[in-house]
Formats: sequence, C-alpha cells, structure tokens
Amino acid sequence: MVLLSGAVRLLSSLLPAQAAGSAAHGDSGATLVLALAVILAAAKLGGHLAERLGQPAVLGELLAGVLLGGLDLAGVVWFRALTTDLTLDGLARIGVVILLFEVGLESTVSDMKKVGWRAFSVATLGVVTPWLLGWGVGALLLPQHSVYVHIFLGATLTATSVGITARVLRDLGRANSAEARIILGAAVIDDVMGLVILAVVGSLIQAADLNVSLSFLSIGWLVVKAVGFLFGALWLGGRVSPLLFGLTARLRGTSLLLVTALVFCFLLAAAAAAIGLAPIVGAYAAGLILEKVHYRDFAGRGEHELEELVKPISGFLVPIFFVLMGMRVDLRALGDTSHLGLMAALIVAAIVGKQACALGGLGGGLDKLSIGIGMIPRGEVGLIFASIGLGLMVHGERIVDAGIYSTVVVMVMVTTIVTPPALKWSLDRWDRRGRGGRGGG
Amino acid sequence: MVLLSGAVRLLSSLLPAQAAGSAAHGDSGATLVLALAVILAAAKLGGHLAERLGQPAVLGELLAGVLLGGLDLAGVVWFRALTTDLTLDGLARIGVVILLFEVGLESTVSDMKKVGWRAFSVATLGVVTPWLLGWGVGALLLPQHSVYVHIFLGATLTATSVGITARVLRDLGRANSAEARIILGAAVIDDVMGLVILAVVGSLIQAADLNVSLSFLSIGWLVVKAVGFLFGALWLGGRVSPLLFGLTARLRGTSLLLVTALVFCFLLAAAAAAIGLAPIVGAYAAGLILEKVHYRDFAGRGEHELEELVKPISGFLVPIFFVLMGMRVDLRALGDTSHLGLMAALIVAAIVGKQACALGGLGGGLDKLSIGIGMIPRGEVGLIFASIGLGLMVHGERIVDAGIYSTVVVMVMVTTIVTPPALKWSLDRWDRRGRGGRGGG
Repeated sequence: MVLLSGAVRLLSSLLPAQAAGSAAHGDSGATLVLALAVILAAAKLGGHLAERLGQPAVLGELLAGVLLGGLDLAGVVWFRALTTDLTLDGLARIGVVILLFEVGLESTVSDMKKVGWRAFSVATLGVVTPWLLGWGVGALLLPQHSVYVHIFLGATLTATSVGITARVLRDLGRANSAEARIILGAAVIDDVMGLVILAVVGSLIQAADLNVSLSFLSIGWLVVKAVGFLFGALWLGGRVSPLLFGLTARLRGTSLLLVTALVFCFLLAAAAAAIGLAPIVGAYAAGLILEKVHYRDFAGRGEHELEELVKPISGFLVPIFFVLMGMRVDLRALGDTSHLGLMAALIVAAIVGKQACALGGLGGGLDKLSIGIGMIPRGEVGLIFASIGLGLMVHGERIVDAGIYSTVVVMVMVTTIVTPPALKWSLDRWDRRGRGGRGGG
Repeated sequence: MVLLSGAVRLLSSLLPAQAAGSAAHGDSGATLVLALAVILAAAKLGGHLAERLGQPAVLGELLAGVLLGGLDLAGVVWFRALTTDLTLDGLARIGVVILLFEVGLESTVSDMKKVGWRAFSVATLGVVTPWLLGWGVGALLLPQHSVYVHIFLGATLTATSVGITARVLRDLGRANSAEARIILGAAVIDDVMGLVILAVVGSLIQAADLNVSLSFLSIGWLVVKAVGFLFGALWLGGRVSPLLFGLTARLRGTSLLLVTALVFCFLLAAAAAAIGLAPIVGAYAAGLILEKVHYRDFAGRGEHELEELVKPISGFLVPIFFVLMGMRVDLRALGDTSHLGLMAALIVAAIVGKQACALGGLGGGLDKLSIGIGMIPRGEVGLIFASIGLGLMVHGERIVDAGIYSTVVVMVMVTTIVTPPALKWSLDRWDRRGRGGRGGG
C-alpha cells in the first residue's frame, strides 16, 4: 500500500513534467507518444490478466482504462485529461472503424443473407422493447419531466454497440458462427434503427419546441435513406469493388492492396456518416462486401492476404479504443445517490429489453440466450445519444440534464462491462450442452 | 478545362455538405474518414504517377498534397481546413515516428558504429556551415533587424529532416547502404545539434530580452543532456530490450510482439521529447536497438517478423504525413515578391551549406555527392523552428515576423521537393559509374 501510494505520487510528479518537456516539438508530441505507450502497455497487461482469469481480453482492456482514468481520485489527473485529447479520440474512432471492417471481412454478403431476416426480427424486437421499457421507466420515475424526456430516455436504450460483442466473439473464435452473424447483423440494423429513432425523436422535439408539427413525409424520408443505404451499399459495393481492385492492381507503389481496402472502407464509412448513420455501419458493410475474388489480381504481387494486413493496424488501434472507453468512466458518477433508483431501473430495462431479441431468433439449433446477451452493450452509441440529448430543449426544459446524463453513462458502462463475462458464460454453457458449433458457414 | 472547373465546383459543393452531414456522430467522424480516404487515394495516385516518371513515390505524395491544398485557390477550402485538423496532424506525427522506427529497424547499432565518426563529422559540417551562411544572408539582406534575428535565421537552416531522405532511400532499396547509414546517422546527430542550437539560441534571446547574461553552465547542460540521451539510449536500450521481449513473450493475448515493439518505440520517443529532442530521434534509436535476437521468444508463436508487422501500419500512416506536409504549402506565399531576394539567398544557403557535408564523408569509395544531397531537406523540423521563432521577442522586436516566416516555409518546401529527384539522379549517376553497391553491411 505504501509502495502503491509512493508509485502514484511518483507518477503524479513525473507525468506533467514529461508532458510539458517538449516545448521544442509541441506539447502534444511528447504527450501523444507517452500516452500511446502507456495505453498499449496497460491494454496488454489488462488483457493478459483477464485471459488468465478465463475472461475475454477486452474486459481487461476496459478495466485497465477504468483504473487509469480512476487514478484522478488519487491525484493523478493526467489520464483523465487524455480522455479529451482529440488525437487519441481520433485514433480510437479509426480503431473501431477498422475493427468493424475486420469483423465484416470475416463474413460475406451471402453469409449475411442466410441470417438476414432473423437478424431483422432480432433487431426490431431489440429496439422496440428497450425503447418502450425505457419510456415507461421515465414516465414512472421522472413524472415531473415532459413526455419528450421519457421518449428520449427510451431512445438512448435502443442502439447496440457492436464493438464489444464483436471483440468478444473474435477473441473466442466465434466471429463466424451463425449466432455471431445474427448478433452483428442485428446490431448493424439496430444502429440504423436507433439512428432513425434519434433523428425522428430529435426532429419531433425541435418541432415541439417551435410549436410546429412534423410531416410524416420527412419522417418517412429519414427511414428510406437509412434502409436504402445498407441495401444500396451491399448491392453497388459488390459491383464496384472488383473494378476498383482491378484498377489499383495496375498501379505502381507499395501497400496498394491494404490502402485500396482502407480507402474503400473509409469511403463507405463516410457515406454512412454523410446520410446520418454511424461510420461503423459503412465500415462493416465494406468488410462484408470485400471478398478474396475481388482482389485476386494482387495475388501475384507478393502482398499478404488482406486479413493479415489489417491485423497489425487493428492490433495497434483497437486497444486504444477500449482503454479510452474505460478511461472515460467517471467513478465519481457512481457516488451520486440521487439517481440510484432511476439508474437501477434503466440498467434493468436495458438488459431485460434486449432479451426480447431471443424471441426473434427463429428456428431451432440457435443459442438464443447468447444472442440476447450479445445485444446488451450500448457503448459509445448510447453515450453519443446522451450527449446529443444534452443539447436538446423543449420550451426551456433540457431533454437530458446532468443527472440523467450521468445515469445514462452508468447504464452504458454497466451494460458494457457485464457483457464479456456474461457472453463467455453463455457460450460456454451452450458448448457444454454439446449443441454449439464453430464456423456456421 | 470546362470539365476540370466543373469537377472543382462539384467537389466544392459536395465536401462541406458531406462533412456537415454527420450531426448524429459528431462532425469529425465523417470528416475524418472522408479525409483519410481522399488523402490515401491521392497519395497512391501521386506515388504511381511519380514512379511512372521514374521519380520516388514520396515526391508524388508531396505534390498530391500541394495540389489538394492548392485547391483553395479554386474555391475548395476543405483541404486547407484539414491542415489544422488535430487528429490528422496526430496521425501524421505518429506516421513519421513509425517511419523512423522502421528505418531504424533496417540497421543495427553495430552498423551505426561503423559509420559513427563519419556521420558525426558530416553532421557537424552540415550544421555549422548552413548556420553561418544563413546568419550571413540575414546580416546582408536584413540589416535593419537585430543580430538575434540573423542568428535565428541561420539556426532554421541547421536541422536535416530525415523523413524525406529515409523514404527516398527506402523507395530505391538503399536504406542499408553505407551512404544511407551516414546520412541517417548524421541527420539524427544533426537533429540533436539543431535542437541544442535552438535551445541555446532561444535561451540567449530570452536572456537578452531580460537583460541578463546566460551561464555557460546551463548551455553546457543542454548539450550534455542531448548527447547523453543518444549514447544512453543505445547502451541501456540494448540491455533492456531482450528482457522486455522475454517478459511479454510470456503474456497471453494477440499482437504482443508488435505492441511490445510499439511501446518500446513510443517510450524512447517520449524520453527524447522529455529532454527537448524530437520524438523521431527516440524512435530511430529504438529501431536501431531492436534486433531479431531480442524477440526470438516470439518465433514459436506464429507471429510474423517485426518488419512485416510494422509495414501495414507505416503503409497506412506514412502517406498521411507526406500528403499533409504538401497540403500545408500555401501557394499564395510564392506570390509575395517583397522577400524574393531573401528567399533565393536562403534557399541557396540551405542547399550549398549542406554540401559541406560531403567534406565530412572521409575515406574513399563513398558517394559524397549523394550524402550532401541527402542532407538537404529541412521538412517539418525547419517549420517547427520557424513557428517557435514567431513567438520569440527581443525588446519588442519579433525574431521571426510573418514575412521571414513565409520565406522560411518556402525554403523548407523547395529543399523538400528538390531532394527526391536530385538524390535519385545522384544515386543513378553513382551506379552508372559502377562504383555503387547495395547493402554495405
């Protein structure tokens, strides 16, 4: 304990000095490389300890982040300050885009078609049920707030953050099982549905604030755009991608296969973002579309397989995302008791609501419990919803105040942290019953 | 021409809309992925065209950047705005750190020892001569400014930007020649010397502004710290690195070899930055230190060679650095005629001054002209010097005013752009004379 507090004091005295010592090359030069070294080391140590305890590495990375961020309670504020660093945030965002691209690469469009309708029914149930439950929780526990607050509170529970589940499934070698494709497919559809709900609820709130009514036409247009994007990307992308790789295979230069694939991924991510969806939706679609046959022209150039080329980039950037997500957890928010009831109710609504997904997993031979559990994490999407809510007002009433915001953050945190061990437990349970199978396609 | 202006207008109308279209996930989410896609595509197209013309790919990447940045003259300001994006800037800075690490990996400490004294004499001549020439240019052409302005102007000419040359040498398969090691070794020593000069000149200027004299002790301490870092890092690093890899080889998890190497690289970069040197000095030292024998414990784990693992990361990040450096060139600065004389004199001083390096390449059988040319680029280090000078004052006189700043920027740009073709020409000339040899160690 003496050793620990001594180490913390030493750290506290060293870090700001190191960060400020690089006047000649700009402060962030030193801060950035030091932060990357510490974050990557913490990620690998946390991941190792988690795996030693039989848990997925991602849980260790998240908790390593919570620990680093929580050092501010011991006076080391350096890591807390890093959570607002724009460069680290950018690296983390690229990391999650690359992760979804990599996960998408492991499946093909025809794999997805096999689970398409199941994923759609799973997603629909997994969006509507938590929304209604969250709405009800708001109406019961926040009667003093307007109905828009209740609708919005429900909406923060809708979108599944596929990053955590994708990572757990990949860590456990299940990224290509039928359950994985249903979960990931449903999470993508979820994200689309959640963002459509956000767009619609946001428009409703703005219209209510201006005392105008919203046309059904503009609501319909939002929905059409989102659904059209996915089908359009999968259809058009599958036709454009072979042409693109055929062209770039003729260029001179190095790393052309990797860079062409990254450009394709980033373009689809940007296209998704341009119509108001999450960039990761586009990245996942890009991964689904790309197949070996598209870049066979590169086979003779001595370049590695695309999966092998993307792995070092995700090995570098993905841990940054998860450690940073952990670091953003403010342990002080857990100490605020005034919203404990709402917090507990919201967590229950978030977890129970997604179990409705299991009902959508039609047909036998599927691990329905794991599907429901895999849909639990809200992650960054829930946080984005909450932060948008902070900026919305109806007749001078803030839709999401600081208390509700903290509550949503804790809900996101709990759903994120319970999922890896719960999913691992449920997948092991399924395996022990002898009904599981790796690699469904 | 009609087609081009139509395309520019289309781009102009599309880009801001796409960048602003992602309200739900934060503006920079869409901007970032779109920017990455465009920058990577431009880098590969520019690199292809340069190679088709027999030039190194890096020149094409730089000019692609100049072209994208220059689109603001046609009303497309999106790329100009990207040059101040903190995330892209961070990615570029990590890119150049990874590049120097990769270049360092291609040599060993004992390779460096063979060229050590030669590199030192090359570096010393290459620092002192341009400094004195730049000082003289300032005294002649800027007589109305104080002697501190002249000293500082000379100092902006000292540091070699090793990134460009390292890239050209690697593109041409010469990264392991004796000349390459002398140039890279000298550029690292140069950087140390340049930064020591910057620290000393900066301290002198601040002391003059406060009317106090600077102790020789504090000047000596700056020098000792810098020199001590390099020798200390090479000596200590070679002992610590096998222990570090031996430990991490026992951890559970994925990408452990890559991440351990990155942590080692970032820690040395941070240590260099902490004592006031450029992070790239630490990254290059880290690359020199790491040898296959240090991470032999990973051989049985089925991980690729370290060089193979770092390549996709540099393939992704390094082009971002060079395109961004090109984009930062403001073509309007070329239109300002008031400093044309100073500009021309400074460029001549910068280029001629570094040719003194050739005198330091003692012993026969060396391509001295290529060594002198390889030391020409000032790149980002010269820009950093100039921007620091913008903030320095003596008795109310700004050390670097807006006009001098533009002049230094153009000097940096010209030295950066002339080097790749000049170096390629001089290496080819050496080869044609039959005295060149690939792989000297």
